[in-house]
Amino acid sequence: MGVLILHLLYVVAISAEAMTAALAAGRRDMDWVGVCLLSAVTALGGGSVRDVLLGHHPLIWIVHPEYLVLTAVSALVTIAVARVIHHLRRLFLFLDAVGLVLFTILGCNVAMEMDMPVIVIVVAGMISGCVGGVLRDILCNEIPLLFRSELYASVSVVTGCLYVLGLHFGLPHDPVMIAATAL
Amino acid sequence: MGVLILHLLYVVAISAEAMTAALAAGRRDMDWVGVCLLSAVTALGGGSVRDVLLGHHPLIWIVHPEYLVLTAVSALVTIAVARVIHHLRRLFLFLDAVGLVLFTILGCNVAMEMDMPVIVIVVAGMISGCVGGVLRDILCNEIPLLFRSELYASVSVVTGCLYVLGLHFGLPHDPVMIAATAL
Amino acid sequence: MGVLILHLLYVVAISAEAMTAALAAGRRDMDWVGVCLLSAVTALGGGSVRDVLLGHHPLIWIVHPEYLVLTAVSALVTIAVARVIHHLRRLFLFLDAVGLVLFTILGCNVAMEMDMPVIVIVVAGMISGCVGGVLRDILCNEIPLLFRSELYASVSVVTGCLYVLGLHFGLPHDPVMIAATAL
Repeated sequence: MGVLILHLLYVVAISAEAMTAALAAGRRDMDWVGVCLLSAVTALGGGSVRDVLLGHHPLIWIVHPEYLVLTAVSALVTIAVARVIHHLRRLFLFLDAVGLVLFTILGCNVAMEMDMPVIVIVVAGMISGCVGGVLRDILCNEIPLLFRSELYASVSVVTGCLYVLGLHFGLPHDPVMIAATAL
Repeated sequence: MGVLILHLLYVVAISAEAMTAALAAGRRDMDWVGVCLLSAVTALGGGSVRDVLLGHHPLIWIVHPEYLVLTAVSALVTIAVARVIHHLRRLFLFLDAVGLVLFTILGCNVAMEMDMPVIVIVVAGMISGCVGGVLRDILCNEIPLLFRSELYASVSVVTGCLYVLGLHFGLPHDPVMIAATAL
Repeated sequence: MGVLILHLLYVVAISAEAMTAALAAGRRDMDWVGVCLLSAVTALGGGSVRDVLLGHHPLIWIVHPEYLVLTAVSALVTIAVARVIHHLRRLFLFLDAVGLVLFTILGCNVAMEMDMPVIVIVVAGMISGCVGGVLRDILCNEIPLLFRSELYASVSVVTGCLYVLGLHFGLPHDPVMIAATAL
């Protein structure tokens, strides 16, 4: 995968996940510091857990500290915008689906470059895609959405498998397809 | 410890912990994907946290991805079986005790091979034995059983100390003893 | 920073955080084993998460296992003392603030020695300072204080920035200043 495309995917995925966190935090009356922290944990937590488990150092936000700034900016913009737009629930699910699919692909990519066995690649993708949302839900003191709706994990596993199967060309179709499913 | 015995202990301990997770998930109406994920986290989480803290890479489920499959199979079998048998609460406690003792021993073993100081070996055993159950309880949005019942941690520490004291021969007696206590 | 001063700061910070955990556990009727475990996780969790994320092995409590004993002793002393003194809420906030500031400084120090970029140094300080308290709150099944009060994270970031700016001489003033703010 080209470095530029990889960077772009990260930016989109991180922004999307940070926005879901901001929307979740907004529902719980957290202040803006709490919103920024929750966004950073949600957006970068999945990848960090994956890298720590795989022993893949240094972590992405240590190499690219600007991603930390990106999560804060995404979160604050989301809070500002959330007051004037509607259909927030739909937006939340759409962004969560986009983040899930992109992070799954990025996670598989990392494990693949480390020459892991296939099942570990798929699991690494699932960890990247799902753990951020799980951390968000735990920090908001809820049973994670992941365990309550089979859709999430299944989507992540299917995405991972598709990717591993070398369907690189199908990539641009996934987010659209998944978003449709989620909505 | 022989490689074969080690492998066997892992299989038994992982199955037992995965089953407790499936029973806990069943009480909360999780779907089958949630059950499999919760089982994997419960069964492999303790060892993963221990290895990450000790800097002991690669993790066990990366070397043996078949353990991931084992957790899923154990969980699904448990769900199927849970519908026809009774005394589930007793079974849950029995399996949890077996998993606790075996993982404690396996955890001490890993730290011992890394030539850690004695107190770290006991703590490593305790982390292996207890963290899986703690993660299960956090993900189910409960105060972990570990913090509510002194039995768990004490059993783990005692097991670890016994093991460190070189009582390898006492090994087969432990699970029986503990299971009796727990019941 | 001198090795002796560093050691002293660790001892004070660990004791303070362990005491906050003991006070929190006391309010929830945990038994003494639960109190010791919660104290150890609270006092050493922040630094452990930081070191794992930065890939900075071995962890502090593996090099100095006596810190594990220190958390247990602090916790048990706190429980014993808590029965005879009042103003526990104030004491809790004071100790939490002391632990927060000291761990932030110690965390920045670790990242600085690894030649990390400035933003990562500040984040490392924040992780060291805040994660212990977050783990304590998650294990007590609450929405972490961190996300509900902007004071905590802000104090941590400000402390980190001051420290990074090279204000080593301002060090002794910080705990006093912050404690006053918190009270």
